[in-house]
Amino acid sequence: MTEFNRKIVLASRPAGRPRLTDFRLEQAEMPEPTDDQVLLETIYLSLDPYMRGRMSEAKSYAEPIAIGGVMVGATVAKIKQSRHPDWKEGDIVVAYSGWQSHAVSDGSDLRAVDPAVAPISTGLGVLGMTGFTAYAGLHNIGCPKAGETVVVAAASGAVGSVVGQIAKIAGARAVGIAGGAEKCAFVKAALGFDAVVDHRAPDFVERLAEACPDGIDVYFENVGGHVWDAVLPLLNDFARVPLCGMISHYNDDALAKRSVDRLPVTMRDIQQKSITVRGFMNVEFIEQQQNFLKAAAGWIADGTLKWREDIVDGLQNAPAAFIGLLEGRNFGKLVVRISPKQ
Amino acid sequence: MTEFNRKIVLASRPAGRPRLTDFRLEQAEMPEPTDDQVLLETIYLSLDPYMRGRMSEAKSYAEPIAIGGVMVGATVAKIKQSRHPDWKEGDIVVAYSGWQSHAVSDGSDLRAVDPAVAPISTGLGVLGMTGFTAYAGLHNIGCPKAGETVVVAAASGAVGSVVGQIAKIAGARAVGIAGGAEKCAFVKAALGFDAVVDHRAPDFVERLAEACPDGIDVYFENVGGHVWDAVLPLLNDFARVPLCGMISHYNDDALAKRSVDRLPVTMRDIQQKSITVRGFMNVEFIEQQQNFLKAAAGWIADGTLKWREDIVDGLQNAPAAFIGLLEGRNFGKLVVRISPKQ
Repeated sequence: MTEFNRKIVLASRPAGRPRLTDFRLEQAEMPEPTDDQVLLETIYLSLDPYMRGRMSEAKSYAEPIAIGGVMVGATVAKIKQSRHPDWKEGDIVVAYSGWQSHAVSDGSDLRAVDPAVAPISTGLGVLGMTGFTAYAGLHNIGCPKAGETVVVAAASGAVGSVVGQIAKIAGARAVGIAGGAEKCAFVKAALGFDAVVDHRAPDFVERLAEACPDGIDVYFENVGGHVWDAVLPLLNDFARVPLCGMISHYNDDALAKRSVDRLPVTMRDIQQKSITVRGFMNVEFIEQQQNFLKAAAGWIADGTLKWREDIVDGLQNAPAAFIGLLEGRNFGKLVVRISPKQ
Repeated sequence: MTEFNRKIVLASRPAGRPRLTDFRLEQAEMPEPTDDQVLLETIYLSLDPYMRGRMSEAKSYAEPIAIGGVMVGATVAKIKQSRHPDWKEGDIVVAYSGWQSHAVSDGSDLRAVDPAVAPISTGLGVLGMTGFTAYAGLHNIGCPKAGETVVVAAASGAVGSVVGQIAKIAGARAVGIAGGAEKCAFVKAALGFDAVVDHRAPDFVERLAEACPDGIDVYFENVGGHVWDAVLPLLNDFARVPLCGMISHYNDDALAKRSVDRLPVTMRDIQQKSITVRGFMNVEFIEQQQNFLKAAAGWIADGTLKWREDIVDGLQNAPAAFIGLLEGRNFGKLVVRISPKQ
């Protein structure tokens, strides 16, 4: 039986919320590794909000995906065939091979995964990009001190769940914001945050204030929108805001139509309270990744660091899962299992 | 002849743009210094945009001025009578004695002025709060490197004029933004900025882009509004934005009514370009003030650092001058001469 490469390509650029028809499943010939390359068989594909940006033509920190191009993304893969001196058949790696069942790599994007530390899918989450993003933003920008209050948006998510837990390891008080009772219960009971507030509650603003009686020293921003509006008045003098994402706006196509412009109030508060707002991407701090992986492996071994994955089966289901991610319908790090044989 | 203390008090809280009737000139008894106090005779009063904030009841970093209370402000004053061991009659000081002809002080707000270095009015400007604000924000937050592009809003103003000049001393390229041909000519010819752009020009956005062919590495924000909108797309990755003021919004009474909300676009750019936006006030860096004064005195002595003052005569004219300041009608550091005998 001839084996094919199955891949999902960008069929059209979404206007606002992506639709299933913006993606297309294709079958292509199996790629062949040349000298110094490996053939990867994808086991897990990571789905992450940043991918929405790559689907647009708008100028961004990275090139847009071409129409007809394979959707980008991190994967956990098995080396199926190796013509590269550093890798051997059967090795498990994290790669950046995208929404497809197979790919070739020259090794430059590969990082070995040790299956003894934790399930290999965590190479895409708590022991991968999202875990490291949490660590890099919190320690380089948030800089929480013992006793300070750290508020985390999207606290049940892949990044937020790690932010709150390592804030507690640093001696800070962790307050999570999540959507819905089930996620809130998980953040408090399973992850051990000190408090959690449901941003869908009608009295969200008051509840957040109650949960932060000493104000907010660090706000780890993943969301934007009405969550930012509730956080802003509670920020203390000299508060730090690592700005990691704005998922509530990723489907905005242009300037949001509203009756008010919230920018002047935000800038006024930043000025008057000597607040730092700092955008970042984890690559800027990549030289800290090994330190993070070592520390995180220790926290996982002793039970300090917990995680939750939301695993969807089958490459063909990735588009629907991704659309759900942008609407907060996943619960934990969203991963697609591509190869059911593992 | 009995001498009185003349003072300007807050008559009512302005709604939006202050009006002359929001101020009232009063005559009061001459204050009497007790032991360890001095009597100050005001020579110059500084007018600064931050005073607009103190006139409002809104929560701010400082208490609002009470209705009927003397308007706050920095002054250059002569010690008219001293019962304080550290000060003698005739000493010239910078004080924080407000919009009045006389005041008593326990000495805690006083700083000696050396008339040999520069005209004493500069103790309120280039050698005072505004000069130090420029220095503190640029060196602690902007951190310009040689060859980088530093853009300065309100470049002919008290703070902006110093920012651009010390950016050039640091080896950076200084691009000013000012309102009107006369101010622009001053910024370029007298202050020596590398380029200047008129924010009132119909093609302001295009001209700013032309003046910054390598993008913007540091933007010193004093203004907000449409100037920020033009700057944002030009900011480079890892740009730094010392947020010193937002004069275009100080007369806003509530959330500005607009058809679009500019906050999401600003936050998206901050995130995607790893930008730092940092509000500040000079007091945070006050331990650097002596270093600044020493350096600035040297730059003044060798002609590197220039300044311009807009001097208005008479305490009774302070309210109109202040209203003009909020509309950009001053040209240089705005100072009111209170005592004509100097």
